[in-house]
Amino acid sequence: MDARIAEGLRALVGDSGLVTHPTRRATYESDGLAHVRRVPDLVLMPRNTRETALSLRFLAAWKVPIVPRGAGTGLSGGATPVDGGVLLSTARMRDVLEVDVENRFARVQAGVVNVDLTHSCAQHGLFYAPDPSSQKACTIGGNVAENSGGPHCFKYGSTTQHVLGLVFVTAAGDIVDLSRPAVDPSGLDLVGIFVGSEGLLGVATEVTVKLVPTPPVVETLLAIFTSLDAACDSVTDVIAARLEPSALEILDDNTIRAIEASVLAAGYPTDARAVLLVECEGTEVEVASNLRDIETILARHGAYDVRRARAADERARLWAGRKGAYGAMGRIAPDLYVTDAVVPRTRLRELVRATTDACEKRGLRIANVFHAGDGNLHPNISYDRRDANELARVLDAGNEIMRLCLAAGGSLTGEHGVGLEKIEGMEQLFTHEDLAAMCRVREAFDPEKRMNPGKLLPVRACMETRTKRVEG
Amino acid sequence: MDARIAEGLRALVGDSGLVTHPTRRATYESDGLAHVRRVPDLVLMPRNTRETALSLRFLAAWKVPIVPRGAGTGLSGGATPVDGGVLLSTARMRDVLEVDVENRFARVQAGVVNVDLTHSCAQHGLFYAPDPSSQKACTIGGNVAENSGGPHCFKYGSTTQHVLGLVFVTAAGDIVDLSRPAVDPSGLDLVGIFVGSEGLLGVATEVTVKLVPTPPVVETLLAIFTSLDAACDSVTDVIAARLEPSALEILDDNTIRAIEASVLAAGYPTDARAVLLVECEGTEVEVASNLRDIETILARHGAYDVRRARAADERARLWAGRKGAYGAMGRIAPDLYVTDAVVPRTRLRELVRATTDACEKRGLRIANVFHAGDGNLHPNISYDRRDANELARVLDAGNEIMRLCLAAGGSLTGEHGVGLEKIEGMEQLFTHEDLAAMCRVREAFDPEKRMNPGKLLPVRACMETRTKRVEG
Repeated sequence: MDARIAEGLRALVGDSGLVTHPTRRATYESDGLAHVRRVPDLVLMPRNTRETALSLRFLAAWKVPIVPRGAGTGLSGGATPVDGGVLLSTARMRDVLEVDVENRFARVQAGVVNVDLTHSCAQHGLFYAPDPSSQKACTIGGNVAENSGGPHCFKYGSTTQHVLGLVFVTAAGDIVDLSRPAVDPSGLDLVGIFVGSEGLLGVATEVTVKLVPTPPVVETLLAIFTSLDAACDSVTDVIAARLEPSALEILDDNTIRAIEASVLAAGYPTDARAVLLVECEGTEVEVASNLRDIETILARHGAYDVRRARAADERARLWAGRKGAYGAMGRIAPDLYVTDAVVPRTRLRELVRATTDACEKRGLRIANVFHAGDGNLHPNISYDRRDANELARVLDAGNEIMRLCLAAGGSLTGEHGVGLEKIEGMEQLFTHEDLAAMCRVREAFDPEKRMNPGKLLPVRACMETRTKRVEG
Repeated sequence: MDARIAEGLRALVGDSGLVTHPTRRATYESDGLAHVRRVPDLVLMPRNTRETALSLRFLAAWKVPIVPRGAGTGLSGGATPVDGGVLLSTARMRDVLEVDVENRFARVQAGVVNVDLTHSCAQHGLFYAPDPSSQKACTIGGNVAENSGGPHCFKYGSTTQHVLGLVFVTAAGDIVDLSRPAVDPSGLDLVGIFVGSEGLLGVATEVTVKLVPTPPVVETLLAIFTSLDAACDSVTDVIAARLEPSALEILDDNTIRAIEASVLAAGYPTDARAVLLVECEGTEVEVASNLRDIETILARHGAYDVRRARAADERARLWAGRKGAYGAMGRIAPDLYVTDAVVPRTRLRELVRATTDACEKRGLRIANVFHAGDGNLHPNISYDRRDANELARVLDAGNEIMRLCLAAGGSLTGEHGVGLEKIEGMEQLFTHEDLAAMCRVREAFDPEKRMNPGKLLPVRACMETRTKRVEG
């Protein structure tokens, strides 16, 4: 990369705002999608909206790709600089700018870590609801890019339902300020389209988010099953009975054994076929009545051990396994392919079987941890990316899982985004006209397609759009 | 309009799909924004997505404006064909295409009336939550265009939070099919930006919406106050106490008197200064505990008569006044200007006073009915549009109300949209760069700007965009 680029940026963001040394740059070669890697030519770390805008305006003349990155915890390759260029990290944008307790919103810089936002408003009895498994590391800006979910999104909805406003900077360095929180967005809802746009429309620098009152009572229940089907059926019945837990998470036997073999051992019985975690929130009476009805359903499906916890530390113990599941799987193999599959809730049981089969018939080691309430499966495959044959089987299984979900009326992604991983699926899910509309919107923000190239929208679809427009 | 246009369309939609006679066309000269009128050159009523696409493809060659219209109940002029052209009515797209009870969604044609959707799934214990005052007439397609709200949106969120998918047709006649319901939209969230786009991006022909379980118990409470401030303060305190009613609606004395003088008399005391309607939903225990706490707050603020109702017909009686308020105001003057103002909830009391002053100092007759829980005021001005001087004062008051709300940190619109009415406010709320981004997105769908011209985005802002792009 031309040395004048680093030189020009240094004048705008200072020495500490640039990473040029190859070893340090190598940290940014991938996100959680482990098998695709490329070291960025330069890492840029602006401190605020203004520095971001000045940098992007400067870079516009150099025509290099810009790849935004939060904490790099994404699982679909959204932050991997596949075409090189400048990786724009939000690591120095960590300020909580405003907490409005009475109107229940916060305005934060994009690099604020998810759980830090909740900590910053906990004293007021408020919290930020979307809670990805990576919430101790992942950033609000990254959550916006991926429209992240989490266990409690079953009750509260995903990121898009919690973003009230945004400031973002386009590839040309224009600042679009939509930070004023609004019940009903005025004008075209650019916030709506920006959330989940995976860095293709610009870089969010500030985010205005809804804060939710901390519930007075939270109680967690852990139920042990002798069959995975029974755990799935319990979830279907809890929802059909119109009970309202705030989270419904299932862990299968392979996951349980991985956890119990690790330092994170949570006391789950290793002969269990499945564990179901249920959380209920609300007033004393609400929680008591909900849990009573849920326990009846669990008993009917043969849950043979049901534990309940109310104090924060006891609840944390029941959740420990779930939260540490990905870490624990590190014991099985060096790499983990965390598949993200979404199906209609009513076909949960059937698709858990089918996705498991897709892995097992290829001799792969699979463990399931999933947001059962949302129909969002995570068949996780443990593998070694240095073994080319195994990697090929993993990717093949991933494709089959994607096809199975689409055929069942599901979708491409429950919460991890399309990124690099599912980009081919876009052409299976959408028609040429659908994709053309998306490509034209992308071009409205970034006509040169320099923002996060190679992600979300298939290159071919966007090439065709251009051709079509010229001809038309 | 060239006779060949009607001729060509007749071949596509049949005789009954066209309205050409001037008297019949005159029905479509305005929506609920009464003072701006223009008769469309032609009214087109396709029966489905295919007919819509064929018609728009045919019309593309003629370069005429296309103005989509649901039931014409909008209040911001969104369906008024200010530049003439073809008015595209969804009146013949009234089919409920699918109700998926287990996965809780419905797929409907855009012209389905809001309340008919709820009726079509009531037998399954489900309903469609957003409930505009006009729900007996307004259509789901119109609700999508305006991102409509309603009393129960305080609990459930506005239209955008209930639309899971869409099929829409662009100005060029392209069909974009995003009808598959998804928790996390794959690709760019075109559904997100389409909702609330007021007909500028295309015509929705099919809508996939979330259905919500009918709550087991619903109880309504009507509280009478001797002061409007006390009613507002009660709302603030109910929210601060984290109680969770599903609706919080205030009616002021002028509204009460108009209702009680009409055939809709609901038995509200005519010497009351304000009435507050509170609705609670949930299980037996939840409703009982919520209402008990709410009554304590109301008593503290001096509510001197509190009535409760639980049976559907009794509840309907308490709501009758609220639902008939706009109709009742027809007794005061021939026209009604329903202002839509939104302010931070914490400044409710102050802004109710300021907006009332803005009207009274101009000698206008104002009555307030509002979604207090959302900070969404509706200062309604009764007037006669044939009195040019009065009309001028009404519009002037409307502008002042808009400025007051913006200055208080509010926004342009709570639920009625920008339309014609607030288009100048867009330049007050947004910067040139913000508007330019919106204009470019509009052009991504409709480069010729033929869809609903003159609405939502100021012409000047979009002209400047074009200039800037050419120069750049």
